[in-house]
Amino acid sequence: MQRNFLLAIILTFAVGAPPAVAADVLPSWREGKTKQAIVQFVKGVTAKGGPRYVRPPERIAVFDNDGTLWAEQPMYVQLAFVLDRVKAMAPQHPEWKEKDPFRSVLADDMAGVAAGGEKGVLDLVAATHAGMRSDEFTAIVTGWLATARHPRFDRPYTELVYRPMLELLAYLRANGFKTYIVSGGGVEFMRPFAETLYGIPPEQVIGSSIKTKYEVRGGKPAIVRLPEIGFVDDKAGKPVGIHTYIGRRPIMAFGNSDGDFEMLEWTTSGPGPRFGLIVHHDDAVREWAYDRESHVGRLARGLDEAPQRGWVVASMQRDWKRVFPFEK
Amino acid sequence: MQRNFLLAIILTFAVGAPPAVAADVLPSWREGKTKQAIVQFVKGVTAKGGPRYVRPPERIAVFDNDGTLWAEQPMYVQLAFVLDRVKAMAPQHPEWKEKDPFRSVLADDMAGVAAGGEKGVLDLVAATHAGMRSDEFTAIVTGWLATARHPRFDRPYTELVYRPMLELLAYLRANGFKTYIVSGGGVEFMRPFAETLYGIPPEQVIGSSIKTKYEVRGGKPAIVRLPEIGFVDDKAGKPVGIHTYIGRRPIMAFGNSDGDFEMLEWTTSGPGPRFGLIVHHDDAVREWAYDRESHVGRLARGLDEAPQRGWVVASMQRDWKRVFPFEK
Repeated sequence: MQRNFLLAIILTFAVGAPPAVAADVLPSWREGKTKQAIVQFVKGVTAKGGPRYVRPPERIAVFDNDGTLWAEQPMYVQLAFVLDRVKAMAPQHPEWKEKDPFRSVLADDMAGVAAGGEKGVLDLVAATHAGMRSDEFTAIVTGWLATARHPRFDRPYTELVYRPMLELLAYLRANGFKTYIVSGGGVEFMRPFAETLYGIPPEQVIGSSIKTKYEVRGGKPAIVRLPEIGFVDDKAGKPVGIHTYIGRRPIMAFGNSDGDFEMLEWTTSGPGPRFGLIVHHDDAVREWAYDRESHVGRLARGLDEAPQRGWVVASMQRDWKRVFPFEK
Repeated sequence: MQRNFLLAIILTFAVGAPPAVAADVLPSWREGKTKQAIVQFVKGVTAKGGPRYVRPPERIAVFDNDGTLWAEQPMYVQLAFVLDRVKAMAPQHPEWKEKDPFRSVLADDMAGVAAGGEKGVLDLVAATHAGMRSDEFTAIVTGWLATARHPRFDRPYTELVYRPMLELLAYLRANGFKTYIVSGGGVEFMRPFAETLYGIPPEQVIGSSIKTKYEVRGGKPAIVRLPEIGFVDDKAGKPVGIHTYIGRRPIMAFGNSDGDFEMLEWTTSGPGPRFGLIVHHDDAVREWAYDRESHVGRLARGLDEAPQRGWVVASMQRDWKRVFPFEK
């Protein structure tokens, strides 16, 4: 007995831990075509010597954030942050009461904010995202996330992450993938929470950015945030962001809106095994149902072209056993 | 005997592989203050529970490339590439014979090239680095590196890497560091060789870049290189590049010129254990000797301020047993 036990230990160490049991993989995904497609793809690219094998350094998976990893309704989390910041900063800016887009924000007049268009958004970003050191901005974001609550669920925004996607991130990493966020959101807005929330380190977060400069103030070096757009990581900007930061083409891409179309197109049109998946928000009970007509996360072309492009459309309603971690 | 042998195997598996023997570490570095400083720093930040311990995700080390990882004399390798490309492309551009800076390049008149200043360099970069797809540019770089030879050593440029630095990269990675290139050189010029030469994957290469755009040509998506400077990763640009790509401050930085000053300053002024090192080119026999008066790799402020800033100055002559891998 004891001798066999020793042998068992030695063998375990020698051949490594036993592979994860299939039943344990992606427990919040219902059995079915979607889960099967994911698992079969991963099995293919990790089967050494197999026809679909991909070397670990090439196993890059990219994820949109808003609507793909966490909820984006009733508005992008970063927009809620901007609105809250304007209100918090208003006492120091009495002139904002008379001046759009700030006036509209302070009056909770979202139609007025929207009427300001791109110029208005830039003014809001400049006022709330620039003019401070980068570490100061990180502290502001972290502080806000610790106290702000989602209007529908009355929970911190960080609890509105999708449990199936957290499992998917972990599953891919366990299979030698490097997981990246590629989002239209601000890179310095996402980095403070991406590591704890998703296990994605700051260097694997790609997003939109304003310009920064290096400055030595009173002997102390700092990165200072400037009121000027640097890079917009959305639509055709996503492949450019991927190319700039990663320098190679991912083999898996996950998105939920037409803002992710080019990222999926770029990822899945390369040679060898490729995988594209669109999260379809069709669950008005547990989350939200929206696609073609939505202002936030509009999805039309992606739905139309997914079949011919071989992209998997994951139905929140049918494919996900659970949506949020707080669900019983 | 056999029982003890079994026990030894079990213990080895249980506690992990034995630590590398000190004598094996950095064999091309001579015993002395410089090597000791490196090894002591690494031992400190990896000693779990120790006062200088740093978690693995924070173990970021950044390396300049030209003059720090490979030779930069008699001219930057990328400049040699540009000059060769102009000559190779000249038959398709008869107008270049009359038009500077191309005329000077074709006449091997380096003073004339230098007289063209920044505008001239931009024209050369636009002509040789832009207008093609990114994968086409990669193929051009790879092809050139396979045939071009260094004028003094008559070997491929890729053989002019510093053996002590290759050992250092491997040593840091073996100790849980993520190693990055942070260079003024073009990111897409470096990525094709960084992985095979240095073991640094493309996503850990930060450099200067021109703008790119995503385009679908005849149904095939591509990243197209545009004749417009995107980002200059030199001097105060280096901390900005680090911040943009990595999003956290490195704890070790290695450079050789004043172009690396801000990178070392930014790295070493953070809290906790910090390490900065300047490679001093003082070996005219095996490599080159240059610093304060050199056009390439000028080093003056770094030498002046290294002592008060606690930066290590590594002497190629005294600290390196071997410089290039091809040396016996």
